[in-house]
Amino acid sequence: MDYKEMSLKLHEEKCGKIEVVSKISVKNKKDLSLAYTPGVAEPCKKIHEDVENVYKYTAKKNLVAVVSDGTAVLGLGDIGPEAAMPVMEGKSILFKEFANVDAFPICLATKDVDEIVKTVKYLAPTFGGINLEDIGAPRCFEIERRLKEELDIPVFHDDQHGTAIVVFAGLINAVKLVNKKIEEVEIVINGAGAAGISICKLLMAGGAKNIVMVDRQGALVEGAEWMNEAQVEIASLTNRKFEKGELKEVIGGKDVFIGVSAPNVLTTEMVAKMNKDAIVFAMANPIPEIYPDEAIAGGATVVATGRSDFPNQINNVLVFPGIFRGALDVRAKAITEDMKLAAARAIASIVKEDELNAEYIIPDAFNKEVAHVVAKAVGDIAIKTGMSKL
Amino acid sequence: MDYKEMSLKLHEEKCGKIEVVSKISVKNKKDLSLAYTPGVAEPCKKIHEDVENVYKYTAKKNLVAVVSDGTAVLGLGDIGPEAAMPVMEGKSILFKEFANVDAFPICLATKDVDEIVKTVKYLAPTFGGINLEDIGAPRCFEIERRLKEELDIPVFHDDQHGTAIVVFAGLINAVKLVNKKIEEVEIVINGAGAAGISICKLLMAGGAKNIVMVDRQGALVEGAEWMNEAQVEIASLTNRKFEKGELKEVIGGKDVFIGVSAPNVLTTEMVAKMNKDAIVFAMANPIPEIYPDEAIAGGATVVATGRSDFPNQINNVLVFPGIFRGALDVRAKAITEDMKLAAARAIASIVKEDELNAEYIIPDAFNKEVAHVVAKAVGDIAIKTGMSKL
Repeated sequence: MDYKEMSLKLHEEKCGKIEVVSKISVKNKKDLSLAYTPGVAEPCKKIHEDVENVYKYTAKKNLVAVVSDGTAVLGLGDIGPEAAMPVMEGKSILFKEFANVDAFPICLATKDVDEIVKTVKYLAPTFGGINLEDIGAPRCFEIERRLKEELDIPVFHDDQHGTAIVVFAGLINAVKLVNKKIEEVEIVINGAGAAGISICKLLMAGGAKNIVMVDRQGALVEGAEWMNEAQVEIASLTNRKFEKGELKEVIGGKDVFIGVSAPNVLTTEMVAKMNKDAIVFAMANPIPEIYPDEAIAGGATVVATGRSDFPNQINNVLVFPGIFRGALDVRAKAITEDMKLAAARAIASIVKEDELNAEYIIPDAFNKEVAHVVAKAVGDIAIKTGMSKL
Repeated sequence: MDYKEMSLKLHEEKCGKIEVVSKISVKNKKDLSLAYTPGVAEPCKKIHEDVENVYKYTAKKNLVAVVSDGTAVLGLGDIGPEAAMPVMEGKSILFKEFANVDAFPICLATKDVDEIVKTVKYLAPTFGGINLEDIGAPRCFEIERRLKEELDIPVFHDDQHGTAIVVFAGLINAVKLVNKKIEEVEIVINGAGAAGISICKLLMAGGAKNIVMVDRQGALVEGAEWMNEAQVEIASLTNRKFEKGELKEVIGGKDVFIGVSAPNVLTTEMVAKMNKDAIVFAMANPIPEIYPDEAIAGGATVVATGRSDFPNQINNVLVFPGIFRGALDVRAKAITEDMKLAAARAIASIVKEDELNAEYIIPDAFNKEVAHVVAKAVGDIAIKTGMSKL
C-alpha cells in the first residue's frame, strides 16, 4: 500500500481525526448537577457579571478556531469547505499534540470577505484565538486585517505568518553559519503571493534591508503596471536599486534565495551566479524550486526545503502551536510583529552554536522543546509590550 | 462547600469542560505525513470529487454544533453568548457521555435572526447536525424553520422538541398506568412559550385531541387579542370548547396538567378540581409549579417534575443524545415528527409493564440503555420514511 492509500485508510478507519471529549467525570447525578443543571448556573452568572470570567470558567481560554473557506487548500486550490476539512482537522490535532491547544476546524460555506469577517466575529465568544488557514489571496489580507481591527483575541493567518516566522528563524542561523549579516545580505524572494509578501515584511522587520521580490511577471519594482495592491505596497519598500526582469536576471549577486513559488524554477546555473556561500530556501511542495544536490552543485552552502526527507525542513509546525500557546497563556490581544520576531528568534535559538551546520539550521519538526520555548518567548514579549490582557 | 461553590470550583479547576483531542497518533514523521501533508491531500481530493465523501473521511459524520445566542439560558434569560458557554459545554459533554456524539459549543455574538441563520449555514460543512439551544422565543421558531428548509442535516431545537419528546414519553406511561387513553384525556398545558407549544404539537401528533393551553393572560382561545403569531396558530388547533380564563378557571375536569411555566402556580385546591387519577407534570425549575406532596394531597395519582430529587424526572438528557445518535447513524436529512414520536415511544418502552408504577413512569436520567434504544428507533423510522441519505 502506498502512502496515498495509507492516508485514505487512516482517515476512513476513525472517520476523521478529531473528537470532542469531557475533561470532567459525568457518571452520576451529583456530577450532572455540578457540570449541568442546576450547578452550571453559577459560572454562567459569574460570567454575566464580568465577561472576562469566561476565561476562568470555560474552555475559551484554550480554544482556537482553525478557520478556512477552502479556497487555497495545500497545492489543490479552491476545493471547497468540505474538502478542506481533512487539512483543518490535521492542523487541529497538531495544535493539541505540540502545545496542548484545543483547536477546532471551522470550514465555511462562503467565500465572501464581508460574510467571513462577520461569521468569525459572531463565533469569537467561544474562542480564545483564530487561526486563518488556506484562504486565497488577496481576500486573506483583508479578512485578517479587518478581524485584527475588530477582535481583541489573536488572529493569525498561518499560511502567511507561520511561514514567514519559520523562514526568518532558518535565515537567522543560515547567515550566522556563513558569517554574513541579515542587514547586509542581498535577498531574492521568488513568489509574491500571501506567503512571499509576509516573509518579505517579517524579514524587513527583522533587519533585512536588501530584498527583491519576483513574481511570474518578473521583479516587483516601483512603477510596474501588472502588480496588485499588496505588491504595489511591497515594491515601494523593497528593490531600492530598481532591478527589473525575470528571476534569472535578478539572481546574480544575491546571497539568499527564498522560494515560495513553483517546482524547478531555480537552476544550478542560476545558483552559480549567486554570491559565495549562497543560501537557498526552496519551499515549493512537494517538488521544490531546486533539489538540494542541484543547489549545492551550483555552489550553495546552505539549502532548506519544505520536505521532511531532506535536511533543514522549513515546517510551520515549528511555529503555530507555540505562538498560540504563548498568546493564549498571557491572554494576548493580538499577535504582533514583535511576537512574530520573538518566535523566530526562539526557534533559531534551539540550534546551539556548537551544533549549527549546513544540514542543521532549523530544529526538527518533532522537537517537542520548540513549542515551549516559542510560547515562553512570545508570552514574555507580549507582556513587555503591553499586549497581554492579564 | 455548597453545590454552587462546588460547581464554580469544578469549572475553574479544569478551565471549562471540553477538550479537542486526536483520534490518531502523531508521534513521528510517518504519522505526520499521513495525517497532514502530503498524505492529507488524498482525502481532500476524494471529497472534492464527491462531497458526500466528507462523511467517509472526516469527523463531520459525528459532529454536532450546540448553537446558542445566549438569550434564554436556563432560567437566567438573556445573559449573552460568553455566559452561555458553561451550559453549551455541559450539553456537549452529555452528548459524548450518553451517545458518543462529538458536540461542540458555538456561542454567537448576534441576536439577529437573519445573521444567526446565515452563520449556521456557513458553519454547516463542518457539522453532521445542529442542536439549537437556549435561543429566546419567538426568534427560535423562525431560526429553526429556516435552517430546516435550507440545510440537509438535522436541525433540532432541544428546548422545544427535547422537552416535548420526554413529556410525551412520560405521558404514554402515565395514562397507561391510570387506564386512560391519550386520545381521550383532557389536557391543560400551562406556559405557552417555545417548550409549551412544542409539547402541544407533539402530543397532538401523538394522538391527543383535547388540549387547552394557558399563558399568563389566560387560556389560548381563538379570537383572543393578546396572542403572538405562534399562539394564534395553536389556538386554532386546540381548545375546541373555547374555554376562557385563568388556569384556576380551566383546570376543573382535566386529566393531565403539564407545566412549563413558573414556581407554585398550581395549588392543591386546583388539583382537587381535576378528574380522578390526575396526572401532574410540574416542570418549572428549580421550583416546580407544585411540589409532589401537595399534588398528591389534591388527589393526583402520578406526579413528575424536572428535578432529580423527586421520582419521575422529566430530563431532556433522555432525548437529545439518542435522537442525534440515531439521526447521525443513518445520515438523516432532518429530524421529523415521526422520528420524535418514535423517540418518545422508545423512551417509554424502557419502563416495562411489570415495573410501571406511580413513581416510575420514565427511565432514570443515567439509564445508559435509553440512548441506544432511542437511536435505534429513530434510525429505523428515518430509513422507513425515506429520511436517510444512506
